[in-house]
Amino acid sequence: MAKNNQKMVEEITSMQVDFAKWYTDVVKKAELVSYTSVKGCMVIRPYGYAIWENMQRILDRKFKETGHENVNMPMFIPESLLQKEKDHVEGFAPEVAWVTHGGSEKLEERLCVRPTSETLFCEHYADIVHSYRDLPKLYNQWVSVVRWEKTTRPFLRSREFLWQEGHTIHATAEEAMEETVRMLNVYADFCEQELAMPVIKGQKTDSDKFAGAVSTYCIEALMHDGKALQAGTSHYFGDGFAKAFDIEYTDKENKRRHPHQTSWGVTTRLIGAIIMTHGDDSGLVLPPAVAPVQVMVVPVAMHKPGVLEKAQELLTQLKSAGIRAKLDDSDNSPGWKFAQCEMQGIPVRVEIGPRDIENGQCVLVPRVGGEKQTAQLDETLGDTVKALLKEVRDRMYQKALENRRQHTYDCTTMDEIVKALEEHGDGFVRAMWCGDEACEDRVKEVTGVGSRCIPDEQEQLSDVCVCCGKPAKKLLYWGKAY
Amino acid sequence: MAKNNQKMVEEITSMQVDFAKWYTDVVKKAELVSYTSVKGCMVIRPYGYAIWENMQRILDRKFKETGHENVNMPMFIPESLLQKEKDHVEGFAPEVAWVTHGGSEKLEERLCVRPTSETLFCEHYADIVHSYRDLPKLYNQWVSVVRWEKTTRPFLRSREFLWQEGHTIHATAEEAMEETVRMLNVYADFCEQELAMPVIKGQKTDSDKFAGAVSTYCIEALMHDGKALQAGTSHYFGDGFAKAFDIEYTDKENKRRHPHQTSWGVTTRLIGAIIMTHGDDSGLVLPPAVAPVQVMVVPVAMHKPGVLEKAQELLTQLKSAGIRAKLDDSDNSPGWKFAQCEMQGIPVRVEIGPRDIENGQCVLVPRVGGEKQTAQLDETLGDTVKALLKEVRDRMYQKALENRRQHTYDCTTMDEIVKALEEHGDGFVRAMWCGDEACEDRVKEVTGVGSRCIPDEQEQLSDVCVCCGKPAKKLLYWGKAY
Repeated sequence: MAKNNQKMVEEITSMQVDFAKWYTDVVKKAELVSYTSVKGCMVIRPYGYAIWENMQRILDRKFKETGHENVNMPMFIPESLLQKEKDHVEGFAPEVAWVTHGGSEKLEERLCVRPTSETLFCEHYADIVHSYRDLPKLYNQWVSVVRWEKTTRPFLRSREFLWQEGHTIHATAEEAMEETVRMLNVYADFCEQELAMPVIKGQKTDSDKFAGAVSTYCIEALMHDGKALQAGTSHYFGDGFAKAFDIEYTDKENKRRHPHQTSWGVTTRLIGAIIMTHGDDSGLVLPPAVAPVQVMVVPVAMHKPGVLEKAQELLTQLKSAGIRAKLDDSDNSPGWKFAQCEMQGIPVRVEIGPRDIENGQCVLVPRVGGEKQTAQLDETLGDTVKALLKEVRDRMYQKALENRRQHTYDCTTMDEIVKALEEHGDGFVRAMWCGDEACEDRVKEVTGVGSRCIPDEQEQLSDVCVCCGKPAKKLLYWGKAY
Repeated sequence: MAKNNQKMVEEITSMQVDFAKWYTDVVKKAELVSYTSVKGCMVIRPYGYAIWENMQRILDRKFKETGHENVNMPMFIPESLLQKEKDHVEGFAPEVAWVTHGGSEKLEERLCVRPTSETLFCEHYADIVHSYRDLPKLYNQWVSVVRWEKTTRPFLRSREFLWQEGHTIHATAEEAMEETVRMLNVYADFCEQELAMPVIKGQKTDSDKFAGAVSTYCIEALMHDGKALQAGTSHYFGDGFAKAFDIEYTDKENKRRHPHQTSWGVTTRLIGAIIMTHGDDSGLVLPPAVAPVQVMVVPVAMHKPGVLEKAQELLTQLKSAGIRAKLDDSDNSPGWKFAQCEMQGIPVRVEIGPRDIENGQCVLVPRVGGEKQTAQLDETLGDTVKALLKEVRDRMYQKALENRRQHTYDCTTMDEIVKALEEHGDGFVRAMWCGDEACEDRVKEVTGVGSRCIPDEQEQLSDVCVCCGKPAKKLLYWGKAY
């Protein structure tokens, strides 16, 4: 931020004017990323990376609480290994980066940089799983993966991105399916509670499932511009990979069996989801649980005697209450600091000046909703601020939920879909479907929205498919997607 | 471990018989790594990765306490970017992996997989550093890097390895030099205190410094077989990279200046260092600070009434005292469990059986040195075990220090070097040096030991170079190295 010293905070394009430009402005001005000479790859700067570290810490704890262990696989996959599962290689080979030389020598076999690591985990499982006593293995890794995308946008779609990939292997199909659902729930809970971002839990249609999966489950969120964003996925593989990779175990009756597998992942894309769910024309709005700075203390009339000392004291008190707090004692004006706090999406700002000190109080300003409030400068302050942080999270969630409610349209005909989108803008369309892929394609062609998921919570909006009029099998969420 | 159920713990080759085989046995039988079909790359398994996670947590805290922030750079470096600093490219180009294709398309410019990220950090600094107000930047990242090695060994030398790389940029040479030394000290302190591994701090000779550095500082440890291992490095770059990458800032007097840089790193090689410093013929010996399991509770006569309940209670008590404890309630015999604890290097084993419970006590067995001791089953147990863990660390450190003392030879002639190595085995040789690279080469050729470092703690063992007889400039540590 030092560059902007003494200047006004730079303008951010209004969301209404150009949502894509607004997004890029926020990402750059809040110093989340920088571009590089490596096309489609980015530097994640300290403020952006700290958000990811907070997500990692919370998720890693949840993974460990549910019995998972971290491991680390190689970043390379030999071409022959990638090719072992037919659907998987078809899905990924067109978009991988190929290593062909080591130093000045040509490799005997090309290696791809992992786009995902099912094949490596399968090779490892074939090595270590022999008996029912070896099952289950509940593994996860935090790494980056590479997919050679044509068009890229920071966090949303980049050639390299950071993620975690869980890979588990179980004796039975039932256990594997339970795991698939368990981890989808962990993701949904994380998004709703910690990121204050409402999600729809559901299943992908067959045309949209992961390459090699029997079924793919997902959580879908609605962004501020009415577009959908897939925030996390959990895949059930059955024993397809086990068969392709010759993974077998001896069960209790001494019979040889194929185990069943899952994989599941979330990525740095979640940072993009936060920006587009909660952000506004003043900049970022960060959920308290993952905000690098939860509270910024801003002294007013800083050079008057006693102000800075009191601000320091306040900072110490907040920190010892377990709050991630910082003090802005730079030479900038309070007005500049306030705008900067807003742009950086800091959940709560605390103002303290000579008059406040005289009155034994300070002023708390939440980033979203709600008015300024005064708080007593006594031992209750930590709890007051924590309660306000919780309120901020709740308000963010309600606001996002309300936005989704306003932009979710129940439709029974194609005309209704077109009309709803025209009248109210992009959003989730809820409409019945016959189960036929041709109808999915046709709806997308005519209305512009594709199927997002078959939600867990089913309703019968009508008896017939929105497209072909044949008997409806499922309620689907449709939308334009990131 | 399930595979070994009911079997005896598999034999580990004795160190005396074949140190290299002993190392590989330990690494595989303690389930630290698995091999893969990607030559020179490995799977780091849960028990191995948990050691790395513990190292990461401690080091990351130390980095943050010293003002550093984490970032994430792309894993790819365009060939033209790698070539910007002459010495740097000469050092690294011969051993990088090259990406030439994205999907089915040939890239316009080859990208290497980062062997280290100076060039990427420099490009980023050129983008974000403009004024003295932007300095310093104290960055670090936790990633993996790739170097196309010919011969590889788990943890010690692999084509891909995990590490952290700190990259900092400062207004003045003095500040950069202070940082270089500060981080070397952080590493030395970490190795000695947390890993119980004594290290020699020093500077590399010019022939051995990092490609592009003005000077390279290192910590060197002596392994059980008398070979040296470079455990961490810290580089001072001066303004060489800044000039090559056009990084400039405006100082307070409005003059344009080149800033000064450093980089520093430690890797998963430290796990290899732990194994070879502390391990013995029974297997691993892990320093308590990074052991995934610090205490294993082993019930004796487990099926007698009350034993398992008491063991559970004990486990809960240890955990709530902040100790990483586990209970082995498997169906294996106590003897098998004891051997397993030893093989896995668990610092303290707690045995509890019917007679112990009757006497209101349990038995504590440290992995190294010291006898079994009984401890009261009361509220003092947590503290007793913590004190024993500290004792274990101290004993490990003393043992390693004593081993180094016994295998450090002060020599004033080449003959003395040859004789010392022959009589006492490999170790550190301390001998004077004139400063001439030809003498370094000659000593290595004749005696087999190369220069390891110019130690911070200098002594005058003789007035002349051990090789040429010209006036001595520095005391050097020499050794065979991993």
